[in-house]
Amino acid sequence: MLSKNQLKLIKSLEQKKQRKKQGLFIVQGEKNVAELLRSDFVIEQVFATSTYINKNNTLLSTHQLVPLCTEVSSDELKKMGTLLSNNSVLVVAKCKTATLPTIASQELILVLDQVGDPGNLGTIIRVADWYGVKNIVCSPDCADFYNPKVIAASMGSFARINVSHTPLVEYLAIQEKPIFGAYLEGSNLHQCALPKSAFIVMGSESHGISDELEHLISDKITIPNFGAAESLNVAMATGIILDNFKR
Amino acid sequence: MLSKNQLKLIKSLEQKKQRKKQGLFIVQGEKNVAELLRSDFVIEQVFATSTYINKNNTLLSTHQLVPLCTEVSSDELKKMGTLLSNNSVLVVAKCKTATLPTIASQELILVLDQVGDPGNLGTIIRVADWYGVKNIVCSPDCADFYNPKVIAASMGSFARINVSHTPLVEYLAIQEKPIFGAYLEGSNLHQCALPKSAFIVMGSESHGISDELEHLISDKITIPNFGAAESLNVAMATGIILDNFKR
Repeated sequence: MLSKNQLKLIKSLEQKKQRKKQGLFIVQGEKNVAELLRSDFVIEQVFATSTYINKNNTLLSTHQLVPLCTEVSSDELKKMGTLLSNNSVLVVAKCKTATLPTIASQELILVLDQVGDPGNLGTIIRVADWYGVKNIVCSPDCADFYNPKVIAASMGSFARINVSHTPLVEYLAIQEKPIFGAYLEGSNLHQCALPKSAFIVMGSESHGISDELEHLISDKITIPNFGAAESLNVAMATGIILDNFKR
Repeated sequence: MLSKNQLKLIKSLEQKKQRKKQGLFIVQGEKNVAELLRSDFVIEQVFATSTYINKNNTLLSTHQLVPLCTEVSSDELKKMGTLLSNNSVLVVAKCKTATLPTIASQELILVLDQVGDPGNLGTIIRVADWYGVKNIVCSPDCADFYNPKVIAASMGSFARINVSHTPLVEYLAIQEKPIFGAYLEGSNLHQCALPKSAFIVMGSESHGISDELEHLISDKITIPNFGAAESLNVAMATGIILDNFKR
């Protein structure tokens, strides 16, 4: 049974301000929660249906979560969460302090400039995880990593990727590795020599990469266009560029 | 000023059954409407704010749309449409009868099996348009091409792509060109010889390609995984595969 105060806390975590204040965020659905439990995130509370609890008895015991578990109905879960369909589990976990990454010798680091849509950020985290990217650095006006929609769209990959937010000019200015940037009129991606270690900067769908970053970009690249669409979604473009880097 | 009957008709077009019955569909937002006007779709009605009408006076006159125009407020537009933010225009247009494509000598045709999510179908139409694909063949249980969410997510590309729905076994059984299928355990896409002309079959995110199609697939391909994510979104996978075919 869910108390009014619990519901109030959980709903408040849809707001960035409250997540910052409380240091907490929510993870919804079986797949995302399974990945959360495999990570080093600290779990505060688990709200689950009796079906989920019975099915995941061993999992909950192994992670010593039984005392943190509150049994709720599917209807209560829907009220608590942001997903249209989540009929199993919602977890409240502690936010971690992200650290700005130092690039390793064989590493690709994604840098996102003004990617404000949480669905896009979540999808980028998922495709980054597919291509073995470990670190994503976001401008402060990107969607918040702990936004429930980011977590949901990442399909569990949020638990494996270090995402930090920082002013990009300062971060990129001190780097020595090449800094690639996705532009509409750069060099043809299919014909570029792409290094094993680099920063890849992706701009917002509507405005591209900020002017203030342009002088820091060492290589402007473009996904060649064979048809008539004017642009690609930023998450799609990120996936295609990563695929080219990993060939 | 919007009449009750007009509103009722437009809302009814959110349902596939009503779109079929009336032979009509809706297109929302400036970008999608601009692409619609460039196409050979027949326009039935235009609902637009005074700002849009003033700004697009020449466009509306050129296409002889002034007599079909009803001026509405932003609030009325929101009530009519399915988008959270559309403060400019909504058009009612006639559906076209899609024809099943015969593959050309240098053509890639996308074949979608059970891609039920309208956002995914719309995103696939957009990326297909980027890579110059002209024809998409869908299984009958894919999202409906005229679903307002498909049209919206395609970002105007719906106007340039021929999308048909048909039972895939019958369609693919008579083809002579290679039929590639995206599987989780096929040949490494980066190492495959990819022809200029082929069918590319993409399955649903949850179930993959149907068993009944498997014997028709000549080449099973897989996007190589360098990290820990278990899968990619079907639209993302389609974009990455098309990029590889077009290298």
